[in-house]
Amino acid sequence: MKTYFPKVDRIAYEGPDSRNPMAFRHYNPDEEVMGKPMREHLRFAVCFWHTFKGLGADPFGPGSMIREWLQPDDPMDAARETMHAAFEFFTKLGVEFWCFHDRDIAPEAGGDLAETNRRLDEIVDLAEQLQNDRGMKLLWGTTNAFSNRRFMAGASTNPSPEVFAWAGAQVKKAMELTHRLGGEGYVFWGGREGYETLLNTDLKRETDHLARFLHMAVDYKKKLGFKGPLYIEPKPKEPTKHQYDFDAQSVHGFLVKNGLDREFLLNIEANHATLAMHDFQHELEYAAANGMLGSVDANIGDLLLGWDTDQFPTSIYDATRAMYTILRSGGFTTGGLNFDAHVRRQSIDPEDLFYGHVAGMDTFARALKAAANMIADGVFADFVKQRYAGWDGEFGRRIENGELGFEELEAHVLEHGEPELQSGRQEMLEHRFNDYV
Amino acid sequence: MKTYFPKVDRIAYEGPDSRNPMAFRHYNPDEEVMGKPMREHLRFAVCFWHTFKGLGADPFGPGSMIREWLQPDDPMDAARETMHAAFEFFTKLGVEFWCFHDRDIAPEAGGDLAETNRRLDEIVDLAEQLQNDRGMKLLWGTTNAFSNRRFMAGASTNPSPEVFAWAGAQVKKAMELTHRLGGEGYVFWGGREGYETLLNTDLKRETDHLARFLHMAVDYKKKLGFKGPLYIEPKPKEPTKHQYDFDAQSVHGFLVKNGLDREFLLNIEANHATLAMHDFQHELEYAAANGMLGSVDANIGDLLLGWDTDQFPTSIYDATRAMYTILRSGGFTTGGLNFDAHVRRQSIDPEDLFYGHVAGMDTFARALKAAANMIADGVFADFVKQRYAGWDGEFGRRIENGELGFEELEAHVLEHGEPELQSGRQEMLEHRFNDYV
Amino acid sequence: MKTYFPKVDRIAYEGPDSRNPMAFRHYNPDEEVMGKPMREHLRFAVCFWHTFKGLGADPFGPGSMIREWLQPDDPMDAARETMHAAFEFFTKLGVEFWCFHDRDIAPEAGGDLAETNRRLDEIVDLAEQLQNDRGMKLLWGTTNAFSNRRFMAGASTNPSPEVFAWAGAQVKKAMELTHRLGGEGYVFWGGREGYETLLNTDLKRETDHLARFLHMAVDYKKKLGFKGPLYIEPKPKEPTKHQYDFDAQSVHGFLVKNGLDREFLLNIEANHATLAMHDFQHELEYAAANGMLGSVDANIGDLLLGWDTDQFPTSIYDATRAMYTILRSGGFTTGGLNFDAHVRRQSIDPEDLFYGHVAGMDTFARALKAAANMIADGVFADFVKQRYAGWDGEFGRRIENGELGFEELEAHVLEHGEPELQSGRQEMLEHRFNDYV
Amino acid sequence: MKTYFPKVDRIAYEGPDSRNPMAFRHYNPDEEVMGKPMREHLRFAVCFWHTFKGLGADPFGPGSMIREWLQPDDPMDAARETMHAAFEFFTKLGVEFWCFHDRDIAPEAGGDLAETNRRLDEIVDLAEQLQNDRGMKLLWGTTNAFSNRRFMAGASTNPSPEVFAWAGAQVKKAMELTHRLGGEGYVFWGGREGYETLLNTDLKRETDHLARFLHMAVDYKKKLGFKGPLYIEPKPKEPTKHQYDFDAQSVHGFLVKNGLDREFLLNIEANHATLAMHDFQHELEYAAANGMLGSVDANIGDLLLGWDTDQFPTSIYDATRAMYTILRSGGFTTGGLNFDAHVRRQSIDPEDLFYGHVAGMDTFARALKAAANMIADGVFADFVKQRYAGWDGEFGRRIENGELGFEELEAHVLEHGEPELQSGRQEMLEHRFNDYV
Ligand SMILES: [Co+2]
Ligand SMILES: [Co+2]
Ligand SMILES: [Co+2]
Ligand SMILES: [Co+2]
Ligand SMILES: [Co+2]
Ligand SMILES: [Co+2]
Ligand SMILES: [Co+2]
Ligand SMILES: [Co+2]
Repeated sequence: MKTYFPKVDRIAYEGPDSRNPMAFRHYNPDEEVMGKPMREHLRFAVCFWHTFKGLGADPFGPGSMIREWLQPDDPMDAARETMHAAFEFFTKLGVEFWCFHDRDIAPEAGGDLAETNRRLDEIVDLAEQLQNDRGMKLLWGTTNAFSNRRFMAGASTNPSPEVFAWAGAQVKKAMELTHRLGGEGYVFWGGREGYETLLNTDLKRETDHLARFLHMAVDYKKKLGFKGPLYIEPKPKEPTKHQYDFDAQSVHGFLVKNGLDREFLLNIEANHATLAMHDFQHELEYAAANGMLGSVDANIGDLLLGWDTDQFPTSIYDATRAMYTILRSGGFTTGGLNFDAHVRRQSIDPEDLFYGHVAGMDTFARALKAAANMIADGVFADFVKQRYAGWDGEFGRRIENGELGFEELEAHVLEHGEPELQSGRQEMLEHRFNDYV
Repeated sequence: MKTYFPKVDRIAYEGPDSRNPMAFRHYNPDEEVMGKPMREHLRFAVCFWHTFKGLGADPFGPGSMIREWLQPDDPMDAARETMHAAFEFFTKLGVEFWCFHDRDIAPEAGGDLAETNRRLDEIVDLAEQLQNDRGMKLLWGTTNAFSNRRFMAGASTNPSPEVFAWAGAQVKKAMELTHRLGGEGYVFWGGREGYETLLNTDLKRETDHLARFLHMAVDYKKKLGFKGPLYIEPKPKEPTKHQYDFDAQSVHGFLVKNGLDREFLLNIEANHATLAMHDFQHELEYAAANGMLGSVDANIGDLLLGWDTDQFPTSIYDATRAMYTILRSGGFTTGGLNFDAHVRRQSIDPEDLFYGHVAGMDTFARALKAAANMIADGVFADFVKQRYAGWDGEFGRRIENGELGFEELEAHVLEHGEPELQSGRQEMLEHRFNDYV
Repeated sequence: MKTYFPKVDRIAYEGPDSRNPMAFRHYNPDEEVMGKPMREHLRFAVCFWHTFKGLGADPFGPGSMIREWLQPDDPMDAARETMHAAFEFFTKLGVEFWCFHDRDIAPEAGGDLAETNRRLDEIVDLAEQLQNDRGMKLLWGTTNAFSNRRFMAGASTNPSPEVFAWAGAQVKKAMELTHRLGGEGYVFWGGREGYETLLNTDLKRETDHLARFLHMAVDYKKKLGFKGPLYIEPKPKEPTKHQYDFDAQSVHGFLVKNGLDREFLLNIEANHATLAMHDFQHELEYAAANGMLGSVDANIGDLLLGWDTDQFPTSIYDATRAMYTILRSGGFTTGGLNFDAHVRRQSIDPEDLFYGHVAGMDTFARALKAAANMIADGVFADFVKQRYAGWDGEFGRRIENGELGFEELEAHVLEHGEPELQSGRQEMLEHRFNDYV
Repeated sequence: MKTYFPKVDRIAYEGPDSRNPMAFRHYNPDEEVMGKPMREHLRFAVCFWHTFKGLGADPFGPGSMIREWLQPDDPMDAARETMHAAFEFFTKLGVEFWCFHDRDIAPEAGGDLAETNRRLDEIVDLAEQLQNDRGMKLLWGTTNAFSNRRFMAGASTNPSPEVFAWAGAQVKKAMELTHRLGGEGYVFWGGREGYETLLNTDLKRETDHLARFLHMAVDYKKKLGFKGPLYIEPKPKEPTKHQYDFDAQSVHGFLVKNGLDREFLLNIEANHATLAMHDFQHELEYAAANGMLGSVDANIGDLLLGWDTDQFPTSIYDATRAMYTILRSGGFTTGGLNFDAHVRRQSIDPEDLFYGHVAGMDTFARALKAAANMIADGVFADFVKQRYAGWDGEFGRRIENGELGFEELEAHVLEHGEPELQSGRQEMLEHRFNDYV
C-alpha cells in the first residue's frame, strides 16, 4: 500500500528524557491523570486544511511545499490521495480525531452545486470507510464560506440574499456530512462575516441576517437529528477589518440577545484570543464562567505580529493556564484540542508536519499534568477562596442575594469606615506558578 | 471679581478664514444645520477632571502645570476657587454643559464618609448657584471609584464586600448630587472593574457582582426620581489588564444577559474605541444599530501609542464619520459631546486649555456641517441602499421574515446557480468622502 | 486597437466642485504650485505588481478579480497583453511614471535563468517601445527575490550561498533592464531579508552578507554606468517576523556602519512606517534630516490592523504632513510618489483601479497645495524657529560649536538657576493645522 | 537597630522542591555553572527607584503603598531612612549590586543646584558607608532628567540650551557620585529625549544636540578618570510619542554615525524591547552581534498592553533565550541583571518586594542552567552551523571575502541551476527548546 510518510513510524512515547525529535516526552495516551487517560482529557484532533492542503503560501509568495498527494492532475484523484495521506498521518501520529471544511476534502465544481455535492458524497464515502478502518472520529465539521470569490463580501452577512442562500445550502450539506461521519460537533467560523468599511455597510441589517442564519442552522440541526453542539469560533478581524464574532464576550452577548445562547457553545482559538488582545486563558475563563466552553483550536500566535500566524502551541505557560481552566470547568465532553496550526513556510518536508504536531501534543500533555498538580495542591484555588471570603460572610451573602441596596451600603460604610486592604500577591502567585511549569 | 483667565475674552466665531487661534472658524452656535442650531446638535461639555484638576502628571513625572486656583493651602478653599475658575472658563468658551466626578469637585476626608459628603454638599451649593448665574447645565455626573487606594482591586467587582459597599455609598451620593444639579444623565466608567491577573481572580463572581451593583443603581435611580439615563462607558483595559466593560458590543451583551439593557445607554469614548481596536465610528454604529447610543466622550488617541492619551479631537475624518452616525441615529437627546481630553504635559499655560477646546469644538462643528452635507447629498446612503437591494426583493424579504430555511435556500441555489457579484467600491467611496472633508 | 478599459476615458481635471468619481478635483497637472507644475512636484507612478498582477488573493481566499489581460493560456501572451493594458491605463490616468519588479512583467522559466532572462528581454523590448510611444518614464525598477520558494529563507541573507548567487544574478539583470528603460532609480526592498526564529538563525552572518550584497550592487551599478540612485525601502516585518531593514533610522545606521550611506537613499513607504509604529511623516523627517530622502511609496495602512494593507492614500492629513516635509527638504529629484497600493478584494471591476488611483492622486494634489500654503504662511516654521531661538544665541551657539563641556554647563546653571519654561502649544498648532486641511 | 522588613529573614536556597514562597528554588549563589558561580554569571541588582520610591501610582490613582521609610516629614530624614531600608533589603535578598538615579536618593532643592548637590553628597556618604558595611556594589548610576517639569520637553534635546545646561550639570554630578561609589558603569536612558508632535519639533537640531551631549559625557568621563562603560538604554516611546533611542539597532547606528560607538555599550531592557515590537532576545542578539552588549534591565512587559508595565520577569522562556545569548556572547563583565521592575499596585505589603525579586532571581537562575545545558548539548548551535555550512565552503568563502561580484554570481547560477532547499525546522527546534524549559 502506498505510503506518503515513508520516513516516519508510529510516534512513540519515550519519556521526559528522550531527545528524539520524533517521539513524545510527555504525551502517554493511556497514562491516567485525575482518574482518566490523557487521551480522553486532551482529545487531540488534526485539521485537514492546514495539514494536508496548506502549502506555505503567504501574501508575498505562493506555496513552498510540494506534497506527493496533491500531484495528480485530476482534482478528484488528488482528493482521494489526500484523504489516504491524512489517515496515514492520523494513525502514525496517534490522534483519534480530525476536523475538516467541506471544501478541503473535495474540489468545488464551479457554480454547479449539485455536482459539487456529488463529489463531496464520494469523498465522504472514502472518509467514512477510513474512519472505520482506523478507528478515527470526527471532532467537528465545518463549511468554508469565505474562500470562493462569491463570499468576498461575507456569507450570511452578504449584501445579497443570493449569496446568503449559497451559504445556507453549503452549511446544510456540511451538516449532513458531519452527521453522517458521526461528527461530535459542528463549527461556525465567520470567515468574512464582518466588513471592510462602514461606508458601504449596513451593520444592523448584516447582523440581523447573521442571527437569522444561525436560527436556520438550529432548525436544520433538529430536523437532521444531529445531536452534537453547534460551536461559534470568535475572531476579531482578518481577513475582514472587523468581524462580528469579535471575541467570546461579544459572541455570547449576541447569542443571548438573539435567543440563541442555549443552542451554541464557543470554540476558542488561542491565536484569535490574542488578536482580540486577550490572553488565551481569558477567553476560556469567560466561556467557562458563562457555561459556553465547548472546544478549543490549540495554536499560538506571535504577539509581536498582527496577523493569525496559527503556529503550533509550544508555550507551557499558555497551555498550562488553558488546561487549568478547562479542567476546572469539568473538561471536554464533545470538544477537544484541534491543532488549527500550520508549519512555517520554510518547514517544507512532510516530516515537519509531524514535528509540529508532536510539539503541540507534548506541550498540552505536559500542561495537563501541570494543571492537575495545580488543582491537587490547591495553592491558587485556596488563595482565591480566601481573597473573596468576605462574600461568604453574612454581609456579602446578603448583597449577593439581592437583599441590600445603596441605602444599606451607605449605612454600612458610615458605621464601619475604611476597610482593611489585602495585597493581591501577584508576584508571589507568579513565582508559585513557575513551580508547575 | 477675581479672574483666572485674564488673557482670554469670550471666544468668538470669526468664520473659516480667520487665522486667530483664539477664535472659532466653524463653530457658530446659533447657525442652523438641518433645521437646528449647531449648539443643540453638538451639546458640548467641558470635563472638570482633566481641565481643572489635571496638571500634566504622567508615570515619568509629576504635574508640570501651575494653576492659580489650586494654590490655596486649605483644600476646601482650593475647591471653591476651582469651581469659580471652571465657570469662568465655561462662560468664556461658550459651552452650555459640564461634567464631573464626585472627587473632582471636593476633597475626600479620608475614611470619614459623612464629612466627605458634607464637603460635597457645600461645593454643590456653590456649583448650583454658579449654574444658575451662568445658565450652565450638567451633562452628566459620575463617581470616581478608582483613584483611592481602597479601590485598587476594583469597586463593585472588588474581592471584598466592604469595598463594594463603599462604591455603592459613593454612587448613591453622586447620583443625588447629579439629580440635584439637574444633570441630564449619569455615567458609569468602570475604572478598575477588571483584573490584573487571573491567578488571583474569580471572574464569574466579580461579573455577577457588577450586575448586582447595576441593578442597585437602577433601583436607587427610581427611588430618587432621577429621570435621566444611566450610561456605561466601555474601555478595554488601562489601568487594569482587562476591563469587563471592554467595548460597546461586550457591554451591550452583558446588559442583555442581566436584564439591564433597557435601563442603560452607552457613553462612547473615541480613545477607548481605538484602545479596543475599533474605529470610533464602529462603536457609535454598533450602539446606534442596537438603540444604545447615549452620549459621547469626544477625544482622540494616538493609534501608534498603547495608552489612553485623551487628546483633543482634531481629526475632521473621525469627527465627520462620528457625526454622520450620530445624525443618522437621530442626534443627541440627553447626551452630548463631552471633551474627555487634556492638554499635553508641555501645554502649561491656562490659555492652552482654551486652545484645546476651541480646536475640538471647531473640529466637531466642521464635522457636523460635513455630515449634514453627506446626508443631504445621499451619496453614501444611496450606495448602501442599492447594494442591499436584493433584501428588499421577494426572496430577501422572505428570508428576513423567517419564512425560509436551509432546504429552501438549497433549492434556490440549485435553480439559480452562481450569483452576479458587485464591486464594493471602497476606493470610490473614500474619494467621495474626501469631497466632504 | 484592443482596449482593456473601454468604459474609461482620459481622466480630466474638473475642479473642486466636481462630484464625478472619474475626475480629478485637485490634480491639475500643469497648475503651478511654488513655481513648478504639480506634475513635476508629485511625479506620480503606477506600480505594475498590484495594479496589473494583483487579483485580490489573501490568506483566506484566492483572487476575486478576473482580468482580461491575464486570460491567455500562454504566459508570454498574457505578459504582452498585460503590458499593453498597463500602458493604456497609464495614459488614461495621466501619470508619467511606472515601476515594476522583474517577475511582474515576464514569467519565470523555472530554474532556467537563461530562458527567464530571454523572456524578460522580449517583454522589455515591448515596454521600451510603449514608453516611447506614450511618453512614459520608469521611476524605478526592482527585483522580486522573495516570492519564489528558493527565497523562502531570504535572498542575500539566505543560509545558502547558492541562493545568494541567485539573488545577485537577478539583481544584475534587473539593474540592466532598469538602466535600459531609462529608469531614474533602482529599489531594494528586502522581502524576506530577516528571520522567522532566532533558533535557526545566524543574525551576524546574515547581516554581514546583506552588506556584502549591497556593496556588489554598488560595484555593478558603476560598471553598468547606471547613474540613478539606489534606494532601500524599510519594512519592519511581514512576511518575516523581523526584517533587517526595520525602519529609516535602522537602515541609515546599517548603511553608515558598512560605509554605504553615500551610495543609497531611502524609499519610504507609508504603510511600512506605521507597521514600524512610526508616523509616515516621522520616517520622511528622519530621512530628510539625514540627507537620505529619495522616493516614496504612497499608500496607507489601517492602524487598527497589523498587516500591510497597502490601501490607496486618502488621508489629507497624512499626505499634507508628508508633502510639507518633502517640500521643505527640496522636493523630489529622481524620486516620486509611487502608488504601492492595491484595490480591496471586493473592488473587482477594472474601473476600481482608476477610482483608487484618482483618489490617491487627488489626495496628494490637495496635500501639495496645503503644504505650499503652510510654507507660504510660515506659521509652523516661525513657531519652531522661535521655540529654538535660544540655540541661536551666544550660549546655544557655543554649545553647538563644541566650545563648552559639562563643567561650563554646571557653572552656567549655578549662575542662572531655573530657566523659564515655554508651552509646547500642541493644541494650538493642531488647530492651526486644520486651517490647511 | 531599626528594621523595615521585620517579617523577612535572609532568603535561603531550598532547592527545586521547596514550596516556600520566601525561598529560592533555583538561585544558589555559589553553585557553579559552566565553571563559574551563579552569582558571578547573573550579577543581580536591585533598583532604588521602583523598589523604595515607587508607591504604585498610575495615571488613574496615586500610590497605594504606605512605606515606613517614607513617613518622616523632613525629606532628608526620609532619604536617610530609605537608604537604610534599601541596604537591609539588599542584604536579606542576597544581591550584590544596586542601581540608582540621582533624584531617587536625595530630594531636589527646587532650582538651587548647589543645595541639591550638597544633599546628594550627604546621602552618598551614607550610601558609601553602607556599601562598605554590607559588601554591596553599585552596578551603575544614572540621572533622572525627565521627571522635573523643567525637562518636560527633553533634557539634552530640549528646545532651550538652558535646559540642556541643567541636564549637563546633573549628569556631571551623577557621574561623579557613581565614580565615588565605585559604580561599574553609568547609564543614559533618554526619558523625554524625543518629541510629542513634529509640528513643534526640529528633529535634526535635537538629535545633533543629543550627539553633542554624549560627546561631552565621554569627555567628562575621561577627565574624571571613570573607567566603567557608558551605557545607552533604548526605548521607543513613552512618555514621549517618539524617543530617539528607539531600539538597539537605531541607537547603534546613531552612535556609529556620530563617532561614538566605541564609547558606549547598550543596556537592554526586556520591556523596552517589546514596546519596540522586538523579542527581548532579538535586542540582545543584535547587541551581541555588534559588540554592543553591556548590561540588562531584567523585567517583562505584558504584550497585550501598550505601556511599560515593568513586571518582574517570570517567563522561563524569555529568560532562557536571553541567557543563551548572553552566555554565548561571553557573559557579563561590567554589566549585570538589574531588576528594573516594580510590584503591581495591589501588592501593597513590603513582603511583596521580596516576592517579586525572588521570583525574578529564580527565573534567571533556572534560565542560566537551562542555557548552559543548551550550550553543552549543542543542539541549536550544531543545527545553525549545518544550516549555514555552504558559507564555509569555497564558493561561500569567496563571496564573504569580497572576491566575487554579480557577474560571477550570474555565471554560477547559469552553470548550477536551481539549488536544493532545506527545511528551516522551526517546529522541531521549538520542541527541542522545550526540553530545556
Ligand atoms: Co481556528
Ligand atoms: Co487562527
Ligand atoms: Co471617557
Ligand atoms: Co480616555
Ligand atoms: Co512599498
Ligand atoms: Co506595503
Ligand atoms: Co530600564
Ligand atoms: Co521599562
